[in-house]
Amino acid sequence: MKYQKPKGTADIIPPFSNEWQFVEQTARETFKLYNYSEVRTPIFENFEVFSRSAGDTSDIVTKEMYDFHDKGDRHIALRPEGTAGVVRSFVENKLYGPEHAKPVKQYYMGPMFRYERPQSGRLREFHQIGVEAFGSDSPRIDVETIAMAIDFLHRLKVDGTKLVINSLGDLDTRKNYRQALIDYLEPHFDELSEDSKERLHKNPLRVLDSKDANDQKLVEDAPSILDFLTPTAKEHFDVVKETLDQLGIDFVIDSNMVRGLDYYNHTIFEIMVNNKALGHGDVTICAGGRYNGLVEELGGPECSGMGFGLGVERLLLILNQELKDELQKNDLDFYVVAIGNKVKNAAFKLVQDLRSFNYRADQDYLDRKPKGQFKSADKYHAKYVLTLGESELEQGTVNFKNMETGVEKVIKNDNLEQEIKSLTEE
Amino acid sequence: MKYQKPKGTADIIPPFSNEWQFVEQTARETFKLYNYSEVRTPIFENFEVFSRSAGDTSDIVTKEMYDFHDKGDRHIALRPEGTAGVVRSFVENKLYGPEHAKPVKQYYMGPMFRYERPQSGRLREFHQIGVEAFGSDSPRIDVETIAMAIDFLHRLKVDGTKLVINSLGDLDTRKNYRQALIDYLEPHFDELSEDSKERLHKNPLRVLDSKDANDQKLVEDAPSILDFLTPTAKEHFDVVKETLDQLGIDFVIDSNMVRGLDYYNHTIFEIMVNNKALGHGDVTICAGGRYNGLVEELGGPECSGMGFGLGVERLLLILNQELKDELQKNDLDFYVVAIGNKVKNAAFKLVQDLRSFNYRADQDYLDRKPKGQFKSADKYHAKYVLTLGESELEQGTVNFKNMETGVEKVIKNDNLEQEIKSLTEE
Repeated sequence: MKYQKPKGTADIIPPFSNEWQFVEQTARETFKLYNYSEVRTPIFENFEVFSRSAGDTSDIVTKEMYDFHDKGDRHIALRPEGTAGVVRSFVENKLYGPEHAKPVKQYYMGPMFRYERPQSGRLREFHQIGVEAFGSDSPRIDVETIAMAIDFLHRLKVDGTKLVINSLGDLDTRKNYRQALIDYLEPHFDELSEDSKERLHKNPLRVLDSKDANDQKLVEDAPSILDFLTPTAKEHFDVVKETLDQLGIDFVIDSNMVRGLDYYNHTIFEIMVNNKALGHGDVTICAGGRYNGLVEELGGPECSGMGFGLGVERLLLILNQELKDELQKNDLDFYVVAIGNKVKNAAFKLVQDLRSFNYRADQDYLDRKPKGQFKSADKYHAKYVLTLGESELEQGTVNFKNMETGVEKVIKNDNLEQEIKSLTEE
Repeated sequence: MKYQKPKGTADIIPPFSNEWQFVEQTARETFKLYNYSEVRTPIFENFEVFSRSAGDTSDIVTKEMYDFHDKGDRHIALRPEGTAGVVRSFVENKLYGPEHAKPVKQYYMGPMFRYERPQSGRLREFHQIGVEAFGSDSPRIDVETIAMAIDFLHRLKVDGTKLVINSLGDLDTRKNYRQALIDYLEPHFDELSEDSKERLHKNPLRVLDSKDANDQKLVEDAPSILDFLTPTAKEHFDVVKETLDQLGIDFVIDSNMVRGLDYYNHTIFEIMVNNKALGHGDVTICAGGRYNGLVEELGGPECSGMGFGLGVERLLLILNQELKDELQKNDLDFYVVAIGNKVKNAAFKLVQDLRSFNYRADQDYLDRKPKGQFKSADKYHAKYVLTLGESELEQGTVNFKNMETGVEKVIKNDNLEQEIKSLTEE
């Protein structure tokens, strides 16, 4: 019988796993420069953590949650995104306390889960990297977060990114705008898509990011939220724009951009690329914003937040091919060829010595003849080959060969480390 | 309302996440030296993958699987261990094919899940690191695997490890030994624990690792499997012992050690430590062995395997305290103090410049006065502080201070990178 991976999952096998390691390592290094630290929350949470944070009308809650009842009849969900768990953890571990320097800057990475409708073709287990900064109302932390996302993509050599920003303002802004939007859309009620009809009174802002072509046409002339910003909200957004300018970061404003989750306010942003691997036109590869109410929503004190998330699978699709080729190489430093059964133990000891000098080394484990062993050395793209036969064993030597230059040398065992180091230092 | 993490899960928050990164990074670096590559399989698999591989009488299947039915009524289980998924992936991706150099060496790391009985106090989500080498019958790959585990622990500075090995031989060995063991235990049937009574005819070897004190006393005088090894199995084990000796790796043999999973044969091993953090006496922190039938069991061709796994939580408990203290430090290179509103944008630019030079840098995001900003610099253990006021801004300079030595210097902006680099290079 054949066993298969579950529907909507993928195996990440070598050499492709090298690309994943590169992206994650680059994330760790970049975020560290910005004084971020890693947080790891459980793969699953109590269902309410996600339903509470995502808002009841979001697609995640209504259609896509990968939830089930455990053996103790608890309503559990595999995490659909990273922010809710990080906020839950922030509150539960009381990181809002005065003993923790503010803002508290955390990043996460790992698998996320959505029980997608099968026809969508999207993965049920996918991967995200994200960051959250808690406890600062400064528009400059908004800009730092955006700058860090761009810096990260830059270090990954993702070119041609386009930054789009908008402001959803504060509570008063949204209240006023909400009414204006309803007033504008109501005369067109019959023309709206079914989804939008349902959302018009529950959450009219969501109509703005409808994927329905006719909806999109209708909202083109809708009032702009930017005309409804309160003085405080306007000042916040002005500083964001001014600071981005000062740092030399290009951006465009899209006042119809609202983001899928209900908890955003003030600055929201998307980073887009135009890359054939993702389809036509500008496609979002990173998105985030400010969510000042979410910590309270999950039982914490009033404490603002700002963050972004990005999908790793999508990022890998647009990674530079040259870089990918480089990452997929699986080069060995040394392959040790053992000639004759009597030298096997000595050859093994030699391989272990090379590893203890921090070289990537290997040998034959299939009882191959010397010819087969040299073939393996080729297959692994070994830079150097050491050959050990019975006469070398007797003389306490080993034959070194640089596979690129063809240079050969007889090395004495009693001076192995130094000789190896000098021979590999060109 | 307060939200809590699910029962049996843990948040890994900073600075403790640094310890996790260190363990994982050390694993990646060590395994790479041995020509291993990473494989990542899904967090969940179809239930049968685990029930098939673990054996029906194992505790994992009978009591501990974290399984559920998904919305499509599929029987799904969160992975209880790493090997089964890696083997499933090995078979499904046809890595046994001749185009893949043998042995195929893969490692994995990540969360695993067991639906433990609540009284056990063990985690439902825990973490393992493991390795698998497919396609070599050589006893030397057994030794390499063991040596790599020891090397890994050594690089983590885990001291005082003790290696215990045994051989479960081949199919004939187990058949003959099985009968001998039943013959020995049957006269004592009434004295056995309930678990062992049940196992005596299903899987008598499991009686040997019973945790029941009376069972343990009974099996002390049981026949030894090492007296039942076939000539082939004996030769395999002899080479393992001889090669360990040659590499200078100490070991003891425990012929009653059988390991929990049913699929092992030939060499099995455990690495133990005696450390108060884990309780009394020798406690196993790493275990593995050869599983020659598992690839076939999961639908692949005949293809041998050898691997080990270890629990990360347990490893962290015994990590050297000095090392932990070092890892938990969260030192910043630079903190930039901005004096006055007019310099905020310039200060931000300076912070971004420092990051682009690969320094870990931060600034204030809470509109603190200079005094509060210096406090933050202290809180972050910043090595250096740069101060920028209005007069410095006008003069195109910034004040540098080494917080350890007290050395101060005025730096000109037009020579920033070079000056910074020379001032931090002591």
